[in-house]
Amino acid sequence: MTAEGAPEGVWVNGRPNGTLSPLERGLHYGDGLFETIACLEGRPRFLKLHLERLETGCARLAIPRPSREELRREILAAAAGAGRAIVKVLLTRGPAAARGYATTGAEQPTRLTLRYRWEEDDPRLAVEGVRVRTAALRLSESPALAGLKHLNRLEQVLARREWNDAAIGEALMFSSSARLISGVMSNVFLVEAGTLRTPLLDRCGVAGIMRRVVLREAACVGIPAEEAALDAADLARTRELFLTSAVIGLRPVRSLDGRACETGAVTRELQRRLAPLLTGAADG
Amino acid sequence: MTAEGAPEGVWVNGRPNGTLSPLERGLHYGDGLFETIACLEGRPRFLKLHLERLETGCARLAIPRPSREELRREILAAAAGAGRAIVKVLLTRGPAAARGYATTGAEQPTRLTLRYRWEEDDPRLAVEGVRVRTAALRLSESPALAGLKHLNRLEQVLARREWNDAAIGEALMFSSSARLISGVMSNVFLVEAGTLRTPLLDRCGVAGIMRRVVLREAACVGIPAEEAALDAADLARTRELFLTSAVIGLRPVRSLDGRACETGAVTRELQRRLAPLLTGAADG
Repeated sequence: MTAEGAPEGVWVNGRPNGTLSPLERGLHYGDGLFETIACLEGRPRFLKLHLERLETGCARLAIPRPSREELRREILAAAAGAGRAIVKVLLTRGPAAARGYATTGAEQPTRLTLRYRWEEDDPRLAVEGVRVRTAALRLSESPALAGLKHLNRLEQVLARREWNDAAIGEALMFSSSARLISGVMSNVFLVEAGTLRTPLLDRCGVAGIMRRVVLREAACVGIPAEEAALDAADLARTRELFLTSAVIGLRPVRSLDGRACETGAVTRELQRRLAPLLTGAADG
Repeated sequence: MTAEGAPEGVWVNGRPNGTLSPLERGLHYGDGLFETIACLEGRPRFLKLHLERLETGCARLAIPRPSREELRREILAAAAGAGRAIVKVLLTRGPAAARGYATTGAEQPTRLTLRYRWEEDDPRLAVEGVRVRTAALRLSESPALAGLKHLNRLEQVLARREWNDAAIGEALMFSSSARLISGVMSNVFLVEAGTLRTPLLDRCGVAGIMRRVVLREAACVGIPAEEAALDAADLARTRELFLTSAVIGLRPVRSLDGRACETGAVTRELQRRLAPLLTGAADG
């Protein structure tokens, strides 16, 4: 029995209940990456895509790539067991050899794996949709970090502090140059005249796993889709939009800053298409 | 005897040789702040200013402010002893109560204090100056975080990886909107016609302690100084510039991307003025 919200299991470099070095560069600089993996009946959803993204992140940050087999084994071990779980994996550049930003190349990356209880969602959210607001805080633009699920997340922490109303499920964020980017913890798609449009993530934002799956599935069923530079005018024009994330899957937006939105045929078709992938009835 | 570069002492919440919780929000999100304090003969330089900046940071991030007396005691204990030391203090929002960005307000902040050996610098650097380059990576702009010494430092890690030539001491960084901001690990001042100009830090950058001291001392001796929006043209025009940080104090720039710079009367006067503050002969 664990306290509500506390993880059910923690592994540091594969060792249960390990602790972290105070020299951890993940702490001092946010020098690392993470993945949040939804698991059903011991099966991590879209595991291959998560491992691929982590490896892409390692290459971009020049963090030595962990053994894919070792990581997979640790994630499967954390996911094992009946029911629903969220497995969060952090991979950092490891403890610092000395003070300062410079890397030596001899760092030993740290793997931190956590298993959290994953409460059943209110099934009405997938049908009726989520109430969404617009965040005041703007995401900073850093092409070198854009797309990565890195550990520099203070902007998300501050943006999430902007609301405390449990009826609001997410806030959409613009960037410093007024581009629409994403939700605080999800990606966003607009549906316009039968076409999917999702923000281009060349300046900031996280290239979500479910975003990638939705783009792939849209291509399979012939729904036109594009990654594009979107702004407030695009958002204001939109009457149909939805959110995606590895945890929530796909959720329609029911209202945006109080304005009612609709859930149309494109969103419903993608929901039907994703359903077997999300329940584990088909392979992701 | 500690390995070269490893800290000589580590305290977690005042406890020697402590370890960190794997739930630490400082690790998961970089949700925290730090200070790097130069200490001479047991005396932390500019301690009051460091404590003030940390408190300002807590207020802006809504991290519960630690007891100033407790922090001061821990820093003095870490600084104690003969010779030179760098004391680094990290203050985070503490272990997460649950998964996700949201804060509960019930978090218990974590204090991490590290004491590092501080090698004697080459005295020629203060006289002849430092060779400096321009970084290719641009700092992202986030007014909500501007000025803070927070733990989201991946950009600095990547910028520091741009050069490996020990003869280069620092790299100057521009922001995504092409403003001159700072060095990777220092602030920068340009001297133009007897006037000091240092980048305004309203979009990004760290409001350095030594930057503040230099502005204060310049005012005392009647050197005009301004914080201003500076760009590449300002930098190209400058023939005299210097770097500041809590660790290096004030260092002239000897060359910028190979172009020779000069160290003029304003820089030398400020060096003379700072000398007693930096050696501990006068109170900061």
